[in-house]
Amino acid sequence: MRKTWIALALLAVVLLLHGGLLTGAQPPETGAEEPTEPAAGTAAEPPGAHTVPAEEGAGEHDAAAGHASPVLPVLLGVVVILTAAKLGGAIFERFHQPAVLGELVFGVLLGNLALFGYRGLEFLGTSEGIEILAEIGVILLLFDVGLESNLDEMKAVGASSLVVAVLGVVAPFFLGWGVSAWMIPDEELLVHLFIGATLCATSVGITARVLADLGKLQKRESRIILGAAVIDDVLGLVILAVVAGVISAAATGGTLSSLAILWIVAKAILFLGGAILVGNWISPRMFRVASKLRIQGWLLMVSLIFCFSLSYLANVLGLATIVGAFAAGLILDEVHYRDFLDAGDHSIEELIHPIYVFLVPIFFVLMGIRVDLSTFGEVSVLGFAAMLSVAAVIGKMICAAGVLEKGLDRISVAVGMVPRGEVGLIFASIGASLVLHGEPVISSEIYSAVVIMVIVTTLITPPALKWTLARGERHRAAAAPAIE
Amino acid sequence: MRKTWIALALLAVVLLLHGGLLTGAQPPETGAEEPTEPAAGTAAEPPGAHTVPAEEGAGEHDAAAGHASPVLPVLLGVVVILTAAKLGGAIFERFHQPAVLGELVFGVLLGNLALFGYRGLEFLGTSEGIEILAEIGVILLLFDVGLESNLDEMKAVGASSLVVAVLGVVAPFFLGWGVSAWMIPDEELLVHLFIGATLCATSVGITARVLADLGKLQKRESRIILGAAVIDDVLGLVILAVVAGVISAAATGGTLSSLAILWIVAKAILFLGGAILVGNWISPRMFRVASKLRIQGWLLMVSLIFCFSLSYLANVLGLATIVGAFAAGLILDEVHYRDFLDAGDHSIEELIHPIYVFLVPIFFVLMGIRVDLSTFGEVSVLGFAAMLSVAAVIGKMICAAGVLEKGLDRISVAVGMVPRGEVGLIFASIGASLVLHGEPVISSEIYSAVVIMVIVTTLITPPALKWTLARGERHRAAAAPAIE
Repeated sequence: MRKTWIALALLAVVLLLHGGLLTGAQPPETGAEEPTEPAAGTAAEPPGAHTVPAEEGAGEHDAAAGHASPVLPVLLGVVVILTAAKLGGAIFERFHQPAVLGELVFGVLLGNLALFGYRGLEFLGTSEGIEILAEIGVILLLFDVGLESNLDEMKAVGASSLVVAVLGVVAPFFLGWGVSAWMIPDEELLVHLFIGATLCATSVGITARVLADLGKLQKRESRIILGAAVIDDVLGLVILAVVAGVISAAATGGTLSSLAILWIVAKAILFLGGAILVGNWISPRMFRVASKLRIQGWLLMVSLIFCFSLSYLANVLGLATIVGAFAAGLILDEVHYRDFLDAGDHSIEELIHPIYVFLVPIFFVLMGIRVDLSTFGEVSVLGFAAMLSVAAVIGKMICAAGVLEKGLDRISVAVGMVPRGEVGLIFASIGASLVLHGEPVISSEIYSAVVIMVIVTTLITPPALKWTLARGERHRAAAAPAIE
Repeated sequence: MRKTWIALALLAVVLLLHGGLLTGAQPPETGAEEPTEPAAGTAAEPPGAHTVPAEEGAGEHDAAAGHASPVLPVLLGVVVILTAAKLGGAIFERFHQPAVLGELVFGVLLGNLALFGYRGLEFLGTSEGIEILAEIGVILLLFDVGLESNLDEMKAVGASSLVVAVLGVVAPFFLGWGVSAWMIPDEELLVHLFIGATLCATSVGITARVLADLGKLQKRESRIILGAAVIDDVLGLVILAVVAGVISAAATGGTLSSLAILWIVAKAILFLGGAILVGNWISPRMFRVASKLRIQGWLLMVSLIFCFSLSYLANVLGLATIVGAFAAGLILDEVHYRDFLDAGDHSIEELIHPIYVFLVPIFFVLMGIRVDLSTFGEVSVLGFAAMLSVAAVIGKMICAAGVLEKGLDRISVAVGMVPRGEVGLIFASIGASLVLHGEPVISSEIYSAVVIMVIVTTLITPPALKWTLARGERHRAAAAPAIE
């Protein structure tokens, strides 16, 4: 840790050069410095124009010498973002916190350097190239979640998981709606609905990590939590589809009949169900064909094509791309590509992993970059964030009632469902991009409050879970002699 | 092979949906259908605006309901391009041809569907997102070439490799210049220079594959070829830097003094040399620091940051990004990150591989897409392509004179140097993007001719090399009894 300065020195060189200490000497640089204007120059530039590696002093003739390649600001952005992601992740992991929070917090710092007078990195939040990399990242994230979820496992965990999941979606939804309606009454009903939807999410990764660290992954409680989280993913995606559909219908001026709402729900369920049915038929055949053509890299290629195709199809059908990516992951099963594994190939998860490592942090840092720290100065934002966090925690505590078996540690199950993590962020980012009457549904202030809620729920879970688990064991230890 | 129809069926569904068979029902689609206008709508859209998953029939209110995400056409493009790449690669490998040619040829088909009346995919050649993915791909390609090159190995192959390499760069350069000056005399001197530079490249991958297939990689001739190819990469990058520098100086209206040319040469050599010197000092320290912070995915992350940083720095200094990527690969050496390997991590090559598999084919297919088949109808283009191909072959045959040792199979060494492969394509693509007096240096016609030259030199090498190697062995077998 002491020698992080070397990594920092390299970054400093890049930033100093970028910041224009060598100003006037680098024409490609001058082009790359102003990408804060959205898609600057893209309209005027010939398709695929690259940078002219120009001679010194040619800066003033930039237009004649050709345009900066669109990849340049993206390269700089990726360097800065990946460095921030890894430093943030490393620091947070050192303090036994999830790395994703470090990525988010360092993203917030990067996005608010303007508060310290440095504006050289403001293009990060608006670069279309970085946006595209981040979105491919989140698609791969949900694909991976789908890959790790297994339909048979979901069936096995049974009734408790289902009830816990449904309670954990319904209660936070109405609580979030209520808090929103109470705290920001001037906003439209649809905004309240969206905030409610954001609170539904469960990010079980952090809980799973804590349970694994404590060696308790095989406990009945843990299996209920993990099963419920998968069901939550599906329910959350359906709710997201419905709320987004309602908002876009409202944006077009129509009021939404209950029939139309039902149709959106039906479409989301039909897509997931249809994708799973048809996919389970196509997937093994697709791999059988691919394995006959046996070429290096086939398994990865077929998986990527499958994932991106379903993401695109989902969007064509009016759903979010991540719904398609999740469905693709759910469908692909090791059974289908066993032919490949026998030949010594890696599993899809292993093959996707390097691309995941490259692109997923870009998404989280970008989510942080888009937080406007200046909104934190407003007491109302902090108050709203506090109330949302309370609603988020209480909403999931109601899950405890969903544990049907007796003698289980209900409180720990409920606490395990609390963290919103990446799933909450994905919802918030989609809300920030949905436009209603020319305004984003999730305004900059609301977005900040939601991010605070995500950070709070994610930060409190590990210590709280350790405490409730230990408490539960003490209780049982005290009760055991009397029963046995 | 017979059942490729399943993969094709999935693609067909995507394309049919895209093609608008369900027209009017999919607003996000309507947005995604017109990305042929460069960066359509980006100026008006709020940063990071996503698609609104809108309800049916809302198409006419698209503007009110928010804009299509920039990722949508990219998703569609990636699905189409990866499918084309893998089908093309599979078909060409089946006929014992290099997969990269299949990717290129299928790219040409994709890019010229308009000739068959289908214009739905024309956005592929102009999408900024796909351009960015392709450029990251080519950066990773050169990074990988650098990783596989080893400075010590280059020293070991010695004088023959160096002379072969220099002859193999100088001869094609002047031959290409001559052919260009003779066939297209109306073009400027700089265009001739660039075409000469394009002929310098050597793509040794195809030769290495043939030698490996024949079990001859350990022969002295093979080692001379492989060593010379690495030196060629370095020389080629220097020439590219010089020619591009000259062109950009000319574009700014200045004539270029020999002093200025010397400065560009010096800069390219200083960058490569400096990067290697400084890099050899920084790289082990960087990895030592990173290994102390031990976090999953560090090795890959540090490598990517290092590669992208040097690519960016190269560009800031007026060189092509790929020069920096190559230098980064040259610097990173297993010795430096042995700490990681001991801990069971994969080598950088292995870690980069999935990202490479994902992005590099996008580059080659895009190179094909940019070939305008209608230019092939012009006899002059085909004639120019034929003469360029002859110059390219003769230029490399002169390498035979560079084999200093006696008794070696000189002809096979020369034939092994013939294929231009990906390196020639990279040069051509940079030429197509350099702008001189408002026109690209490499026009659409010249680009087509260069691509034909690349295909011809790459296609003839495997059979020619097999033939000369067999002939060389017959000769030696006939000569051996008399000597021993």
